[in-house]
Amino acid sequence: MASWLQIPRNSPFSLANIPFGIISTVKNTARVPAIAIGDYALDLSIFASSGGFSQLPSIQAHLDVFSQPTLNAFAALGRPVHRQVREYLQAIFKADTPYPRLLRDNASLQDEALLPLSEVTNHLPMQIGDYTDFYVGLNHAFNVGVLFRGPENALQPNYKHLPVAYHGRASSVVVSKTPVRRPNGQILAHPTATPKIPVFSPCRRLDIELELAAFVCKGNELGKPVPIDEAEDHIFGLVLMNDWSARDIQAWEYVPLGPFNAKNFATTITPWVVLLDALEPFRAANLEPGNRESLLPYLREKRAVNGYDIALEVEITNSGGKPTVVSMTNSRNLLFSFSQMLAHHTITGCNLNTGDLLGSGTISGTEERSQGSLLEQTKGKEPISLADGSKRLFLEDGDTVVLRGVAGAEGGYVGFGDCVGTIVPALKLD
Amino acid sequence: MASWLQIPRNSPFSLANIPFGIISTVKNTARVPAIAIGDYALDLSIFASSGGFSQLPSIQAHLDVFSQPTLNAFAALGRPVHRQVREYLQAIFKADTPYPRLLRDNASLQDEALLPLSEVTNHLPMQIGDYTDFYVGLNHAFNVGVLFRGPENALQPNYKHLPVAYHGRASSVVVSKTPVRRPNGQILAHPTATPKIPVFSPCRRLDIELELAAFVCKGNELGKPVPIDEAEDHIFGLVLMNDWSARDIQAWEYVPLGPFNAKNFATTITPWVVLLDALEPFRAANLEPGNRESLLPYLREKRAVNGYDIALEVEITNSGGKPTVVSMTNSRNLLFSFSQMLAHHTITGCNLNTGDLLGSGTISGTEERSQGSLLEQTKGKEPISLADGSKRLFLEDGDTVVLRGVAGAEGGYVGFGDCVGTIVPALKLD
Repeated sequence: MASWLQIPRNSPFSLANIPFGIISTVKNTARVPAIAIGDYALDLSIFASSGGFSQLPSIQAHLDVFSQPTLNAFAALGRPVHRQVREYLQAIFKADTPYPRLLRDNASLQDEALLPLSEVTNHLPMQIGDYTDFYVGLNHAFNVGVLFRGPENALQPNYKHLPVAYHGRASSVVVSKTPVRRPNGQILAHPTATPKIPVFSPCRRLDIELELAAFVCKGNELGKPVPIDEAEDHIFGLVLMNDWSARDIQAWEYVPLGPFNAKNFATTITPWVVLLDALEPFRAANLEPGNRESLLPYLREKRAVNGYDIALEVEITNSGGKPTVVSMTNSRNLLFSFSQMLAHHTITGCNLNTGDLLGSGTISGTEERSQGSLLEQTKGKEPISLADGSKRLFLEDGDTVVLRGVAGAEGGYVGFGDCVGTIVPALKLD
Repeated sequence: MASWLQIPRNSPFSLANIPFGIISTVKNTARVPAIAIGDYALDLSIFASSGGFSQLPSIQAHLDVFSQPTLNAFAALGRPVHRQVREYLQAIFKADTPYPRLLRDNASLQDEALLPLSEVTNHLPMQIGDYTDFYVGLNHAFNVGVLFRGPENALQPNYKHLPVAYHGRASSVVVSKTPVRRPNGQILAHPTATPKIPVFSPCRRLDIELELAAFVCKGNELGKPVPIDEAEDHIFGLVLMNDWSARDIQAWEYVPLGPFNAKNFATTITPWVVLLDALEPFRAANLEPGNRESLLPYLREKRAVNGYDIALEVEITNSGGKPTVVSMTNSRNLLFSFSQMLAHHTITGCNLNTGDLLGSGTISGTEERSQGSLLEQTKGKEPISLADGSKRLFLEDGDTVVLRGVAGAEGGYVGFGDCVGTIVPALKLD
């Protein structure tokens, strides 16, 4: 698909994508919905109020969703509406658009509504109710299990029967580019000494976790599980997510109830929600498709090819230094699909709401330099080298981490954009 | 304190209490703030709009908080305001009220605003952002630890150094009297058989957890921990909570990331938030006050007497049967205070918001019939008897569980009212 808009061939926001987000600008400080396309954001509030949607009858009763400060109201309209709006906006931007006067030939509206991405501020796309983090990155679970229990018992007996998950902290989910302050907390300075007496310290083993995450569009009532083959209707789209982890705080606190302070200080997501429709051409099998046969029926999808082929990478740049890609992998390294996660989440009757966030768990491959966390790459003792020759076991103050993810080929990329966070020093506390 | 209103001497809502909640009635279906007093609720929306607060100058700019469908806006005003409003309402109801014309001598306003509790519907008092469940019921943690690991290793090495916690599911927190549907899920029909293959089944080991929980009034910014001696300023008040637990689902799913589906189907709270000011006369030492000396400074409160003396009980009534009190205990059976929980929660910089809910963890004593869960009482194999002679290892369909909690003495009780839930049968799913 060609556009009348100049879209760089390496842009993650090709005409095939049309992801949704929330922006503000210096001039318009109110938060409003937008889409990203090439190097621009289209302010949907201005576009809508200028009659931009006049050729899409089905949205006329809902135009107020484009003046909200989050995407929740738009998401709640459901996937058939998202599909119509996305396809309409693709038509608007097509070189041979059927609606040339709405934007292509309307220079003043372009000036007003089509804003260089470099000049917009991104905000959290959704008001998040609950955030759940799954653990379905099979290789990650195996690698971490080896570190804790050895290769024979690396995976728990439950691991391939259900998508393991825990409740995460919703309040500290932040949008890309928000600085991440190194947390203070209790750690064991000498983990093998007895008795185990913690010290108060800035985290010394600050790590990243490369994840995909899904936003819920349509909720379900308390007591009403979502059948597996209807689960996708409840998913608005995906973002990239960095689930920052304080490994030393985690090691001390996590038995028996799981990670808490080790994860609650920040979780960074990309600002643009890529709709499932945009990812549809990139469906690919997840790991171990044969595992499907051993699943209980409520987790058995009709659709066997239930993952996506999304290339992922992790880049670290030390303060003032050159970027180093420390990991490259693919989202196919998951054992369960988001539909399976959602069906499992609700099988007890648990209610999901519009804006809930479901993380995949850390995504790691099996090859060298394909792991989604530093813990797996360095095992806490084998440092990796950055481009300037400096070494890393874990993150240092001033390090900037960028996650990237993209599906498709040049000229038609469906990508997430950068998921960025820079580590700032811990607060000095007594 | 005597009131002009007839208040039963055994009411949990004496003039010394004045708890806040959200109600609606058949006539006024909009949700509005109210207080409970004796057998009545005072509709604060009607009271405010009728000039009831005219003698409290400091609230005049904020009267809109009394027409909101949750208490969040009122809570966000902060504890000094809550204190003024509570004391003002006590003055309104005092026999020798200085403002007799505002309610005591205003029969028509009484007719309109003073509603029999039996005629009001209670709703969740707050819009809950995040819900965190702690695990600071020392005896509960010990009892459960004994079942899993034996008495020598019952408590983990971290247990007395920090208030252990996990993130809970906020969306399924429901108000007292909401029916609780028995969840379906994966369980091991034969836990000791190998290989471990789960079956799909209604939960067979449905349990209760007797807890106190605190609502946050004032939040803190991301990156800004709350110092321990300021933590109480962030707490609006307390409710009773039943953190329903599916023990068989939990046993299969919970390693390594903690309970998820075992808890996400429902958590019941009392509708009336008892302000910390109302509980102030009942301060009492928690367990092991000497533990304070071994804590890291960020958890060491100036105030050593940091718990409350609240008598607690659990009652079970089988369908059509007589009530049986199966447990009696006291809230002093906690190792950490809510201030310590809140300081620990935020030490990493984690942000709390108005309406966040912090559970204490299950409260159990050391005596017979003082445990806050059936798992502890029956160990899954030694049934308890109900009044009609029937036996329980865990809850059966039709059972109604009531938690109660009260501080003080007859005529001046500061109590929570009943925290009620009735078990309805699991959905039949294929």
